[in-house]
Amino acid sequence: MSRPTGACPHAWRHQQQPLRGRMWAASPAFRRQLVLLRSLLPSPPAPSSVAGFPPSCPSCSSFLRVRTNHAMAASAGTVYEADAEAVVRRITPPLDRARHKGQAGKIAVIGGCREYTGAPYFAAISALKVGADLSHVFCTKDAATVIKSYSPELIVHPILEESYSVRDDERASVSSKILTEVGKWMERFDCIVVGPGLGRDSFLLDCVSNIMRHARQANIPTVVDGDGLFLVTNNLSLVEGNPLAILTPNVYEYKRLVQKVLNCDVDEETASEQLITLCQKIGDVTIMQKGKADVISDGKTVTQVSTFGSPRRCGGQGDILSGSVAVFASWARHFVLTNEQPTEKRVNPMTLGCIAGSLLLRKAASHAFEKNKRSTVTSDIIEFLGKSLEDICPAEH
Amino acid sequence: MSRPTGACPHAWRHQQQPLRGRMWAASPAFRRQLVLLRSLLPSPPAPSSVAGFPPSCPSCSSFLRVRTNHAMAASAGTVYEADAEAVVRRITPPLDRARHKGQAGKIAVIGGCREYTGAPYFAAISALKVGADLSHVFCTKDAATVIKSYSPELIVHPILEESYSVRDDERASVSSKILTEVGKWMERFDCIVVGPGLGRDSFLLDCVSNIMRHARQANIPTVVDGDGLFLVTNNLSLVEGNPLAILTPNVYEYKRLVQKVLNCDVDEETASEQLITLCQKIGDVTIMQKGKADVISDGKTVTQVSTFGSPRRCGGQGDILSGSVAVFASWARHFVLTNEQPTEKRVNPMTLGCIAGSLLLRKAASHAFEKNKRSTVTSDIIEFLGKSLEDICPAEH
Repeated sequence: MSRPTGACPHAWRHQQQPLRGRMWAASPAFRRQLVLLRSLLPSPPAPSSVAGFPPSCPSCSSFLRVRTNHAMAASAGTVYEADAEAVVRRITPPLDRARHKGQAGKIAVIGGCREYTGAPYFAAISALKVGADLSHVFCTKDAATVIKSYSPELIVHPILEESYSVRDDERASVSSKILTEVGKWMERFDCIVVGPGLGRDSFLLDCVSNIMRHARQANIPTVVDGDGLFLVTNNLSLVEGNPLAILTPNVYEYKRLVQKVLNCDVDEETASEQLITLCQKIGDVTIMQKGKADVISDGKTVTQVSTFGSPRRCGGQGDILSGSVAVFASWARHFVLTNEQPTEKRVNPMTLGCIAGSLLLRKAASHAFEKNKRSTVTSDIIEFLGKSLEDICPAEH
Repeated sequence: MSRPTGACPHAWRHQQQPLRGRMWAASPAFRRQLVLLRSLLPSPPAPSSVAGFPPSCPSCSSFLRVRTNHAMAASAGTVYEADAEAVVRRITPPLDRARHKGQAGKIAVIGGCREYTGAPYFAAISALKVGADLSHVFCTKDAATVIKSYSPELIVHPILEESYSVRDDERASVSSKILTEVGKWMERFDCIVVGPGLGRDSFLLDCVSNIMRHARQANIPTVVDGDGLFLVTNNLSLVEGNPLAILTPNVYEYKRLVQKVLNCDVDEETASEQLITLCQKIGDVTIMQKGKADVISDGKTVTQVSTFGSPRRCGGQGDILSGSVAVFASWARHFVLTNEQPTEKRVNPMTLGCIAGSLLLRKAASHAFEKNKRSTVTSDIIEFLGKSLEDICPAEH
């Protein structure tokens, strides 16, 4: 479809909504259709245009379901509320009896050290609970025994080392050996998650930097969270220009990233423009800024998921999210690659993965809170990942 | 509110009960109102006055719901029965959707050694189940692997050392390193619990003494239980004059404390006066004397919680209590600090934390016993912390 010219620069979008205004236009089925159409449309206008997106364009507003969230009320930037349920349904692959082990996804979490073991476990088990076939953890020896003890479902590799266990003269050889070990597996993974419970040991972070470079060369999508964001913030080249990188900072991590990359503080007045600029400055990455709403940008559009989850803020929910996003991003990538569209119409699968992961966590957290109230902990939320996905996207669909 | 003078020294209190004697005065709602009023009143009379509190003052008796428990029947001291449910409702923060991880509380337990691993786990997981966002454990390396394996929800730091693992000539440097490690985290905590499963190794206790001093300098409330009480009883300067210190001795620990501080035996005839004197002698601390009723004093008032819990006395219930008190004390401190009252009307948040923690344990123990009878163990009680809090203070409140 060619992009027609006209008085309204978004007229080409209006052509996608011939039924607009009919009585059933507001039905859920219609809205799902809209978002599916949207997901196959060319990317929205470049940032400068987004910033100046005419809010008075009623057709665009309706079609794109434009909303501004509270924090962005004063912003001129446009934030699209994702039809996240439609995204989940669209990218989740059907369960095919003819498939083999691994075809629904193989995920690896790079994290887990002497201090932290819960975070990589949460991320890895969440990937399985969302529907991946295999979930690996690459961690230090100290962490491996504990993570293995949490669950027999995970494949845990006690490969990483921290400074205290490596002599200075051994560093180069140990680092090389670690990369070789992880490298043997890398090609098999559909996505890796770097950071849950990684810690901040300098030697370990150096090794993980090598692993990230290797993953990039192998075109493996990479979700970066937790201490992985600490690493990346101090070494932006690890993700610069990588369209398969997803960063998932919380409010504090986002603040550090903005300060480092944009050399200023977070400005809530121009939050969406700042997010777009951040993605562009780093180059090609997708960022999901976690908060009351999860706000997602790939440097072109800004989309949010604001479905209410739970008021509990117990630690570990970010790990569920990173594991879930890894699975959905790999599914979305497969969906986009196998449903051929002209390049200009392709939607960024990393964005779709973020949207789907965000929604699923929020749904599961909502169920868990309804059951456990203030005593809700992360394991309670993981328990509801399956039901939440089934509610949105039944296994028989 | 100024304190009027009159024939009865408690006339100023009588002014708070204009509705006394009306038919609905005994309703739960009215009683809750009374305790809320009380929590905003000036502190009760100084110990000498309490000792001479006229038992015949009917108005005071009604308003303050004065009761003497069995052990104190012959005492002239006045023991106030706390309206603990009202306290829980008052200090528990609403769940706010705009909050971030950590804002509902970050707790740390200092304990766990080669011999004991259950106690610090019980304290730390209880803190999470009551509603804290993050719960840390600082323990020895031997204990860490086991405590981690109990639950991925906890952040366990294998930092402490016992004498057997440290050479004499290394002691100073290891001790210094431990303090540095814990110190890095200290400012983040809203309350620490010292003692569950700590053991009595001399080197380890020296290190924990340093940690307690550091917490005090940083104004971090500190609950002292178990072997922490052994440490403190032998080194009172660790808590002397610290209004943010809470000691939670059981009958044996209390006996040793009385012998050490007051140089006499526990006297049940003058139990409440003795408790007040004990608090005053140590200086500013709050003590919760655990027993059939939990009796709480900060050296000014004596309050008790006598709600029946369970006849089971399985080990570990004290750890649930210390973890719960830590959360409630930090919430109460926040409540008192953010609901400005004239200094003379401020209630001691440490006392409120004890009252709330005591009630919650008793409620949860009651539920657990109803379900499990003689086979009730500590984990069964922890399972009911959430329901017990929800019954008193629904999450939507």
